Amino acid sequence: MSGPAPPAAPAGFSLNQQTVRQWSLPELAAGCAAAGVRRVGLWREPVREYGATAAARLVRDAGLTVTSLCRGGFLTAPDPAGRAAALADNRAAVEEAAVLGTDTLVLVSGGLPPGSRDLAGARERIADALAELGPFAAGHGVRLAIEPLHPMYAADRCVVSTLGQALDLAERFPARQVGVVVDTYHLWWDDTVAAQLVRAGESGRIAAFQLADWVTPLPEGVLLGRGQLGDGCVDLRWFRERVASAGYTGAAEVEIFNPALWAREGADVLAEVLDRYRHHVL
Amino acid sequence: MSGPAPPAAPAGFSLNQQTVRQWSLPELAAGCAAAGVRRVGLWREPVREYGATAAARLVRDAGLTVTSLCRGGFLTAPDPAGRAAALADNRAAVEEAAVLGTDTLVLVSGGLPPGSRDLAGARERIADALAELGPFAAGHGVRLAIEPLHPMYAADRCVVSTLGQALDLAERFPARQVGVVVDTYHLWWDDTVAAQLVRAGESGRIAAFQLADWVTPLPEGVLLGRGQLGDGCVDLRWFRERVASAGYTGAAEVEIFNPALWAREGADVLAEVLDRYRHHVL
Repeated sequence: MSGPAPPAAPAGFSLNQQTVRQWSLPELAAGCAAAGVRRVGLWREPVREYGATAAARLVRDAGLTVTSLCRGGFLTAPDPAGRAAALADNRAAVEEAAVLGTDTLVLVSGGLPPGSRDLAGARERIADALAELGPFAAGHGVRLAIEPLHPMYAADRCVVSTLGQALDLAERFPARQVGVVVDTYHLWWDDTVAAQLVRAGESGRIAAFQLADWVTPLPEGVLLGRGQLGDGCVDLRWFRERVASAGYTGAAEVEIFNPALWAREGADVLAEVLDRYRHHVL
Repeated sequence: MSGPAPPAAPAGFSLNQQTVRQWSLPELAAGCAAAGVRRVGLWREPVREYGATAAARLVRDAGLTVTSLCRGGFLTAPDPAGRAAALADNRAAVEEAAVLGTDTLVLVSGGLPPGSRDLAGARERIADALAELGPFAAGHGVRLAIEPLHPMYAADRCVVSTLGQALDLAERFPARQVGVVVDTYHLWWDDTVAAQLVRAGESGRIAAFQLADWVTPLPEGVLLGRGQLGDGCVDLRWFRERVASAGYTGAAEVEIFNPALWAREGADVLAEVLDRYRHHVL
């Protein structure tokens, strides 16, 4: 018995699984199919727990394509052992991305090592790592996508804080090896972002486009306070139009870290996300 | 009876009263005198509560000079009534600064109005207000000092997020009317800040230099989590050297919002600040 076909989600829409963290991978696959969603962004931890090959089969059987895998990175360790471990972990992430059939591995580049005040040095170590990882990734059909994170994460999570910085790093390497992520939550405040989006388009660097809104007050630790689309102050439509003008034709991936969303029924959250997407992004 | 003269605080050192918020103004004056501190940065609320004229006499009698008054600003209201109220309040702040004998009024420019997503519009309203306030301030011997705040405050507190943006605004006006504040807490993450400090020096715009360190995790609301000098990841000495190279000869004002400091004896906090200043700034 088959029910009515679900309404198709808007073309280009992708659901990052962190938005509905309460869902297991099978629930995600079923929930997306039921809602007419055809694209998902996945995270390594749940994929590895389920098994990458099994996860790839699961999402493929549900008619889903994987728009990105989050995340590699954390490439700022100064000691040889830390560096070697990070490179090995990123190679594993590339392989997992290839198994899942996505061409995009999102990188959260890493913060300052404990006790360090050397931002420039940390950024240079990221470049060194990209030089090693870029050819390996491209050989697997995967592009490393540097995600600039909001400057409030510069100390402990990612010393790449602006789209300009991300492009400065990416452009040292071939475009098929290294691109950038445009995430509205991280970039909305920056008055140079319009020019940097043009630059990113011209050099063919936009590997992923992610969406969340900015709401205040920020919670302790500032990790889990992202807003549902339309609840905050980000001009989401402006971003969509600008990445499109820059030549980006990939998915718009909604990635919202918000415990209030995780406390609800996943299907309700997804329906709300789709509604908000139609009203605030399209 | 007079005890031994206190050791002089380092030349250029100034104590912003928020660092020792537990002190009343008389306690601040006495505590600074006892510690050999000759300069303080004051805030409007405690000054108005004490009376601006009385506060001016109090600090003068303690041998203190006032390096800045915080804060004017909040200039982004779009409605005529809100705008008029903001202008009136800023004129009052200029007059209070003049009474205190400081030539610097720090501006926190204001966030987005409720429901707005128009960052560019908000920034332009700041420029409009500066055009009205600048001549008034200069007529009182006071310079308006635009403080770029960390981008995590862009929505609700200050849409001016980088030194470059602050200079873009300031340079529309004569240097004696409008300058900028260099605060390590807000600017440390930005890889364009070295170039912007040079620019600020060349155009004679550095009106104030403030210091706090960056520590994580950030607390809820992200207002009160600034670090004691040396506890975080900011290269404070680098900043002092760069503002000096840019020609700045004014005070280095330590302004740390941190409830853990406020829970201690003010004199202990000040002694620690001076010790940290000698080790991490000089």
